[in-house]
Amino acid sequence: MSGRAAELDAADPLAGFPGRFLPSPDVVAYLDGNSLGRPPAAAAQRLADFVRDEWAGALIRGWTGDGPWTSPEGPWMEWPERIGDRIAEVALGAAPGTTVLADSTTVLLYKLARAAVDAAPPGRTEVIACTDDFPTDRYVVEGIAAERGAAVVWAADVDEAAALAGPRTALVVASHVNFRTAELADGAAVTAAVQAAGARMLWDLSHSAGAVPLDLAGWGADLAVGCTYKFLCGGPGSPAYAYVRPDLHDVLRQPVQGWMGRADPFEMGPGYRPAPGIRHVVSGTPPILGAVPLVVGLDLLAEAGTAAVRAKSVALTEFAVELYDEWLAPLGVELVSPRDPARRGGHVTITRPGFRAVCDALWARGVLPDYREPDGIRLGLAPLSTTFAEVERGLAELRDLLARG
Amino acid sequence: MSGRAAELDAADPLAGFPGRFLPSPDVVAYLDGNSLGRPPAAAAQRLADFVRDEWAGALIRGWTGDGPWTSPEGPWMEWPERIGDRIAEVALGAAPGTTVLADSTTVLLYKLARAAVDAAPPGRTEVIACTDDFPTDRYVVEGIAAERGAAVVWAADVDEAAALAGPRTALVVASHVNFRTAELADGAAVTAAVQAAGARMLWDLSHSAGAVPLDLAGWGADLAVGCTYKFLCGGPGSPAYAYVRPDLHDVLRQPVQGWMGRADPFEMGPGYRPAPGIRHVVSGTPPILGAVPLVVGLDLLAEAGTAAVRAKSVALTEFAVELYDEWLAPLGVELVSPRDPARRGGHVTITRPGFRAVCDALWARGVLPDYREPDGIRLGLAPLSTTFAEVERGLAELRDLLARG
Repeated sequence: MSGRAAELDAADPLAGFPGRFLPSPDVVAYLDGNSLGRPPAAAAQRLADFVRDEWAGALIRGWTGDGPWTSPEGPWMEWPERIGDRIAEVALGAAPGTTVLADSTTVLLYKLARAAVDAAPPGRTEVIACTDDFPTDRYVVEGIAAERGAAVVWAADVDEAAALAGPRTALVVASHVNFRTAELADGAAVTAAVQAAGARMLWDLSHSAGAVPLDLAGWGADLAVGCTYKFLCGGPGSPAYAYVRPDLHDVLRQPVQGWMGRADPFEMGPGYRPAPGIRHVVSGTPPILGAVPLVVGLDLLAEAGTAAVRAKSVALTEFAVELYDEWLAPLGVELVSPRDPARRGGHVTITRPGFRAVCDALWARGVLPDYREPDGIRLGLAPLSTTFAEVERGLAELRDLLARG
Repeated sequence: MSGRAAELDAADPLAGFPGRFLPSPDVVAYLDGNSLGRPPAAAAQRLADFVRDEWAGALIRGWTGDGPWTSPEGPWMEWPERIGDRIAEVALGAAPGTTVLADSTTVLLYKLARAAVDAAPPGRTEVIACTDDFPTDRYVVEGIAAERGAAVVWAADVDEAAALAGPRTALVVASHVNFRTAELADGAAVTAAVQAAGARMLWDLSHSAGAVPLDLAGWGADLAVGCTYKFLCGGPGSPAYAYVRPDLHDVLRQPVQGWMGRADPFEMGPGYRPAPGIRHVVSGTPPILGAVPLVVGLDLLAEAGTAAVRAKSVALTEFAVELYDEWLAPLGVELVSPRDPARRGGHVTITRPGFRAVCDALWARGVLPDYREPDGIRLGLAPLSTTFAEVERGLAELRDLLARG
């Protein structure tokens, strides 16, 4: 089988990319790039340059771009929109002026969901969410429903959520790629079904951006949020992004009214008027330093190109499923993720009783997938940084562990 | 006069500190440390180490502290509380378990103010805020009042706010050091007055932490928030902090229910139950990389010690006022800040018609104060990084500009 991995690596059009990430000395196989992306080597240099030239060199002038220094990303004041535009272009299939970098995914979910619930016509007092979705999406929706006197309608998954949307629905919240199973939703169809019911759709793109192609413009998507520390390689806790379709900017009003979302932040006058365009989603001072590595991650992704990234992602997950069939299924492991790559995101989840302990044993050997209740091992295969050899080594360790009992 | 600056620098017990910040080649005098602190030289090294050893070396294991690496700040999952404790100890005069690092000041203001308004007894439907406060504080309060059907009562300043607190007041929001004038409130007296009226007090400490001594425990403070990129040197857009008095943790409930604020984030089960203790204030994934320089800033502050920092701060602002009296008052400049150092924070604001253009001219000469409407030049004197010579050079340039008309 190692001939097969070598063959796949040799034929990989993105074979040059894994070497452009920093080394992890004791790691045998990193299979968790869907949770925390590896650091691009250029991110370290970009951070060093940032501290010396931009923070120390420009000091307060960095905000407006005065002084001796010009950042490729423009004055810091413009980063929320400029980096938002870059995310939109590279990863979301969205137009400029629709996406902003800010806060965390949770806070942005709160802002956009609140805005959508508040703007719903009378009688639309239900929010549909998925029992199977990432916890923060569920908790945010429950909190908003409680405070606005709305009801949460629970769907098993995104397709059921779309089917449940009706005359009482204000908003549907769902992930495009399921964080546990990697099931990939039909973004266009779900959006259309929700909109046909007169409701708005809020996508969580955390597990899709950077791994599967997105076309928010083509879907006519209403709202979306996502994190940047997975396939976009922004680093631990890097800022999140929010997308709002342009015609909704004047209709929706998010509740966290801060100085940076005001029409003129530096006037500092009385009374809040939201900025026109996507900027109204921003609240406080943008997290500049924490966004520096993300810029490098986006550059790498743009250089590779969406089609090649998706092709590599599919090849990686297909290879993992192939090894699963040969090595793991005979040992009683089950495949949780869809077998059809057209319905699967960038990770593969497998299950067997006792996988919590097995995952710990893998970690002790330097093989790093992650674990999700109940008994799930998630193999996150980042298209830019993962080799086929790495997938093989990781699953060979798992096979050996299981075979030994 | 330059003899005087040299004398003060020679006698400065903190004279070794300015040299521990990175150089800014073209900057003649940095007088805006109250807006963006300079980068500690050790922050650059700490960031490089973080990227290599923690992000690349530990990868996903950084969250739990497994693997070959141990961070001095502990597993990333614990950073919100551990760095919160450090801020509490070094800058806030608060006990462990009361302070958490998260989000931006604006978002934390929203969370705590919403929690306090929601928990107020029936009939307490007013929030008092100051017309003179930093815009985000005002906008957040206006937004919350609008959504909760409360009224905003405007006070001219923090003392008037305390005096206005009465049987209908739910919450008073005010800055401990005024962002424009540097007026320093009596934290203990204001807190006591607001609490005597049966209301809760939410302090914005953005312009005080790291420059003036704080004693949240001694004041019996209810709630506080603040940013870390001013005197704490966390870098542009570094995360903010929130303080909640221990007995309020079970009483107040902030509205942004995210997975990181749940009792057990990794259970990922149905239904949100807030974590016990201060952790319930956290919503999304903590901004780890963006918090790295802050750790270094806090270490520098701890090394210098609160008393020495305040003494240097007072000496710097006294020297600025001295130069103002001698050089600037005769040229028609007025002092906005209190003359009594006991009532003044870490900056000095002066005014004269046309100061917008004068500030631009100073920037062109490498002298960097900041400008605040109307016609205010703010001299922010960071105790750890500012020299007396720097203050003198900056004000000499201002004098020359004004003298030339």
